[in-house]
Amino acid sequence: MNHLAVVGFGQMGASLAAAWKAGGLRILAIDSDPSVLRKALERGWADEASSAIDDSARADAVLLAVPVRAAAALLPDVVRVMRPDSLLLDVASTKRAVVETYRRAGCGVPYVSLHPLAGNEGTGIDSADPAMFRDAPFLVLSVHASDEVVADLESRIRAIGARPIRMASAREHDAAVAATIHLPHVLAYALAHLGRDHAELAGRSFRDSTRVALSDATMVLDFLLTNVPRTTEAIERLVRLLERFRAMLAAGDEEGLARFVEEAKRIRTRL
Amino acid sequence: MNHLAVVGFGQMGASLAAAWKAGGLRILAIDSDPSVLRKALERGWADEASSAIDDSARADAVLLAVPVRAAAALLPDVVRVMRPDSLLLDVASTKRAVVETYRRAGCGVPYVSLHPLAGNEGTGIDSADPAMFRDAPFLVLSVHASDEVVADLESRIRAIGARPIRMASAREHDAAVAATIHLPHVLAYALAHLGRDHAELAGRSFRDSTRVALSDATMVLDFLLTNVPRTTEAIERLVRLLERFRAMLAAGDEEGLARFVEEAKRIRTRL
Repeated sequence: MNHLAVVGFGQMGASLAAAWKAGGLRILAIDSDPSVLRKALERGWADEASSAIDDSARADAVLLAVPVRAAAALLPDVVRVMRPDSLLLDVASTKRAVVETYRRAGCGVPYVSLHPLAGNEGTGIDSADPAMFRDAPFLVLSVHASDEVVADLESRIRAIGARPIRMASAREHDAAVAATIHLPHVLAYALAHLGRDHAELAGRSFRDSTRVALSDATMVLDFLLTNVPRTTEAIERLVRLLERFRAMLAAGDEEGLARFVEEAKRIRTRL
Repeated sequence: MNHLAVVGFGQMGASLAAAWKAGGLRILAIDSDPSVLRKALERGWADEASSAIDDSARADAVLLAVPVRAAAALLPDVVRVMRPDSLLLDVASTKRAVVETYRRAGCGVPYVSLHPLAGNEGTGIDSADPAMFRDAPFLVLSVHASDEVVADLESRIRAIGARPIRMASAREHDAAVAATIHLPHVLAYALAHLGRDHAELAGRSFRDSTRVALSDATMVLDFLLTNVPRTTEAIERLVRLLERFRAMLAAGDEEGLARFVEEAKRIRTRL
């Protein structure tokens, strides 16, 4: 991989392009918004820019950096124009839709699906930050690629300060992010609704626990609606834990509550 | 109020004593641990120190700064030795137990129950910070006190940078903190348990949403177990919101989800 076309130069696409360009990759920015392409070039985050998605055929790797459902919609058109030995990449927040679409497209280009667990509350190129990957977990799902290709990607991921973590399947990925990313969002929304009448009392615990409610709503709906089975499962498991906690409280079971609380504190401390 | 006895020189007692002493109050530190009293004097956070709770009778106001159940246990002994015109204060995290104990004690000293929504994950005098009240909501429940006494307290609360907020009753207080403080703790514990198998994936959203799980477990159990009816109610309301969200997800109701998410984001943004 020497020449990467990044389709969608929003927060994630621009950040990753800028970080990898600093490491020597040649970047072709592709976006439908001319002002975004201008910024990409001005900031030195891309070597070339185009508004035509078919230009991605010129690169030896194509990164889809648009929301999940847009990525799944674009994927068939992109793989159709790609050279057969070019590498397909994406940074979709959930994997079932993109992997199924890739399989249905049946074109066989090498494909590694990525998911950097990084980002901020902003949207678009103006919120991009090439340093956002430092110490971030960076999920790697090899859908159809040689060990060499995956190893090369992992070393590029390490080079920008992130920690590559291999996922065995789209299902494993989607279940893991349901528990660690999607559920915190759902909880933050529910908690914000509950706290509505007590806004003036919102101290640090309430602010921390609801911070992710500030995330871009379009992005969140995109990942929730492409991960319905795993997210609803995670909600159900959480509700069962809450019911157990409520029952211990109602029974005044101080010992049981202490065990639950201490174990949770141990898990959180180890992070 | 000129001379304040602070019973319990832990994080909250020491912080509030230090902040108010800087504003001119004379402070008598009372604690069973001699090393705590030594630190209180060395750091200039107290003018005098004693390990005898009866010495609180020498001050014209007594602040119980121990956990809720300890405060309720100490209260009858403290009011027994107080001068009838002295002011009783506490900083209990929940109000039902202390207010009921005060009423049963039937001694009639003036009593204002306080609750600064401030603090850090540490415990004890070494984690105290007189600056922690800056911009913090500071709940004020006048149980039995003249308007002048309450107004004087509120001006002292403002003087240390906090925002006094009047509570109408112990019940109102306990319901409000159940939604904004106790529930975030319960959720953080449940979420930590759910994320246990995915610890390496814990990114910013998971860390933010579970941060309060790091709180001192003894303190948390103390406030949960003295606020069982309001906390279980809050859990039940949250579970109903989660069920509603899960149903919208399962039905693919994008419009309903978008409304829920956008409204939550609006509430959180206003904080």
